[in-house]
Amino acid sequence: MPVSPLAPAKFPQLPTIGGVTFAAAAAGIKYKDRADVMLAVIAPGSSIAGVFTRSATRSAPVLDCQAKLGSDASKIAAFLVNSGNSNAFTGSRGSASVEAVCKAVAAETGAPVDRIFTASTGVIGEPLPHDRIIAKITELHENQSAGEIENAARAIMTTDTFAKGAAATVTVDGKEVKIAGIAKGSGMIAPDMATMLVYIFTDAQIGQADLQKLVSETNAKTFNCITVDSDTSTSDSLLMAATGASGVDVTGNADFATALHEVMQDLAHQVVRDGEGATKFVTVKVTGAQDDSDAHKVALSIANSPLVKTAIAGEDANWGRVVMAVGKSGAAADRDTLSIRFGDITVAENGWRAPDYSEEATSAYMKNSELEIGVDLGIGNGESTVWTCDLTHGYISINADYRS
Amino acid sequence: MPVSPLAPAKFPQLPTIGGVTFAAAAAGIKYKDRADVMLAVIAPGSSIAGVFTRSATRSAPVLDCQAKLGSDASKIAAFLVNSGNSNAFTGSRGSASVEAVCKAVAAETGAPVDRIFTASTGVIGEPLPHDRIIAKITELHENQSAGEIENAARAIMTTDTFAKGAAATVTVDGKEVKIAGIAKGSGMIAPDMATMLVYIFTDAQIGQADLQKLVSETNAKTFNCITVDSDTSTSDSLLMAATGASGVDVTGNADFATALHEVMQDLAHQVVRDGEGATKFVTVKVTGAQDDSDAHKVALSIANSPLVKTAIAGEDANWGRVVMAVGKSGAAADRDTLSIRFGDITVAENGWRAPDYSEEATSAYMKNSELEIGVDLGIGNGESTVWTCDLTHGYISINADYRS
Repeated sequence: MPVSPLAPAKFPQLPTIGGVTFAAAAAGIKYKDRADVMLAVIAPGSSIAGVFTRSATRSAPVLDCQAKLGSDASKIAAFLVNSGNSNAFTGSRGSASVEAVCKAVAAETGAPVDRIFTASTGVIGEPLPHDRIIAKITELHENQSAGEIENAARAIMTTDTFAKGAAATVTVDGKEVKIAGIAKGSGMIAPDMATMLVYIFTDAQIGQADLQKLVSETNAKTFNCITVDSDTSTSDSLLMAATGASGVDVTGNADFATALHEVMQDLAHQVVRDGEGATKFVTVKVTGAQDDSDAHKVALSIANSPLVKTAIAGEDANWGRVVMAVGKSGAAADRDTLSIRFGDITVAENGWRAPDYSEEATSAYMKNSELEIGVDLGIGNGESTVWTCDLTHGYISINADYRS
Repeated sequence: MPVSPLAPAKFPQLPTIGGVTFAAAAAGIKYKDRADVMLAVIAPGSSIAGVFTRSATRSAPVLDCQAKLGSDASKIAAFLVNSGNSNAFTGSRGSASVEAVCKAVAAETGAPVDRIFTASTGVIGEPLPHDRIIAKITELHENQSAGEIENAARAIMTTDTFAKGAAATVTVDGKEVKIAGIAKGSGMIAPDMATMLVYIFTDAQIGQADLQKLVSETNAKTFNCITVDSDTSTSDSLLMAATGASGVDVTGNADFATALHEVMQDLAHQVVRDGEGATKFVTVKVTGAQDDSDAHKVALSIANSPLVKTAIAGEDANWGRVVMAVGKSGAAADRDTLSIRFGDITVAENGWRAPDYSEEATSAYMKNSELEIGVDLGIGNGESTVWTCDLTHGYISINADYRS
């Protein structure tokens, strides 16, 4: 697959995070001649937090990670992730595979089993060939290096066309704190539950409970606000480790929260930019709703509408389909107070096409690769922003053939 | 557009219904050289019932029809429908257009304004050129004929590739009662609210309240169980007229209810068979759910999933995507009691791929143009059946270009 036209120019320079090292390896799980497994080893005393898919058919590694959140932070920890097989809907063999992999990582790294968090992404319903992963654990441990995060990001890709990374540095009490994160995700992306695979590391010092609260709150405004195709993965996981290596306590610090928000939003946007077949990056901004929850419903209804998404692909200023998506959302709306804009162009207001609407100007705007659809419901103060992409022939080609 | 490969061989022979006549005309609303408006005139003493979209941005004709349900059945009635423009999101001009058209039909036919039910289908947000319709009312009235129902069905088509009709004859108390119906619909089809445009006629005798109850109940099991693209129209309307010309009272008659169910299900299936870009007709049958509502959630989640629909288009037996759709549905589900079948082939059971699963046999099954996906949740007695089609390049081509 060619790289998405919406991809960033290059993988960003990510800072090393004290207390975290990485390595990637080619275990041959499904793909040939590429890294497909990564191991991150995290120093004792690190806080770990996570959010996961709420799918009723979530994978064995997801169930395992959820059970391990809150385990003893004084011990070494590790993240082990493979691509090519999701170990989802694999019955009791699924958890047996997770157990076998965790045992091997524990033996190699000295981390207790309940501090080892695994994830698997790829085909659903095939047994995970965990022996191939286990055969690589020693190599992965020996090759650990603080600078290998980019290769770790590459190892977890499936239909992704580029590796995703983001970073921030924030000064707290006169001292620098760093955040670095990686993510994978391209299809089966829907925001109602959680995310795709995301790993974020910081050298900040913060307790596990405080870190969990911050991650959950930020997730609600970032990864839970993106959608590619309304389909929610069985494997979605976000894990964050705070090593404390900087010696800076960030508990309750607003600047740190803002920096983390920026990193998570950046990664979330990169997932949308790599949406299967995407040619347009679309911001849907809803204001004036009865409450934030209604605004979110309307924003998602627009962002998930196949008719809105195909109109965007065709560079067609078809705002009638936005009206349709508002109408079907289930949120309170009043035709006569509703207004719609594409970028800065008001296309509809007062229950009617805007008086100075120009088809020509709006069509010209639709040729941009970054678009904003604004909807004001005019009945309250609720607001929500959601990010999505268009629906193209590329999405059909990828998904009518690829067994994911 | 070529005719859908799933279309019936030909338009069915529909019986004439005593008390109802039809005519179609070319008013030039949007399309050139084809009929785009139809008028049905219905004898005094007919019961009329209807169901409509629950969209918050529903069109002016829908709002007008809803207000008129229950009007005096002793008077003449009329249905006037145009294609090419939906008169939706057209502000106060929308209701002014409806009023002007109804006034003209009333003057021509002698029906009171509150017995005239209009509908409009096509582009959203453009003013309806109602003068072009009014100019054809006399012609439409003069050409009324009991046998013109097929031309009426053709006049209401938009992206439809074939005209849709269905009929049934049922014997009640030794006498024949006839039902004939027509429908249009191809894209912007989602079941949560109502239907596309559907008109059903019978010579049975039944009061308006009883007819309304029967139509609403049957709608819930037919049109509300289809989806093409999860997008709900602003214009969806179903109207049914019972003229009583047969002299047979069908109030509470089970055979009549069954016959009506068959006609409505047949029309609903034809809408799916004409789904934009469709190449496969798919029945999704969910059983063993906690309750019927949960079963319906799961069935719709599968039927609306872009990943399931593209896998079907690619003839890929990708049951992992069905697992995903069950998981995201929000319904109660237990991975270990879930079973999935494609046709008669059990592909997954007991939280795992079926022991005698054959990729070859399942792939061969996927080549059929009519498919059934069965999901048993194994936790209760709730069940639901939903009908949908696949998601293909054809859908993208139609919707990235067509301003509907």
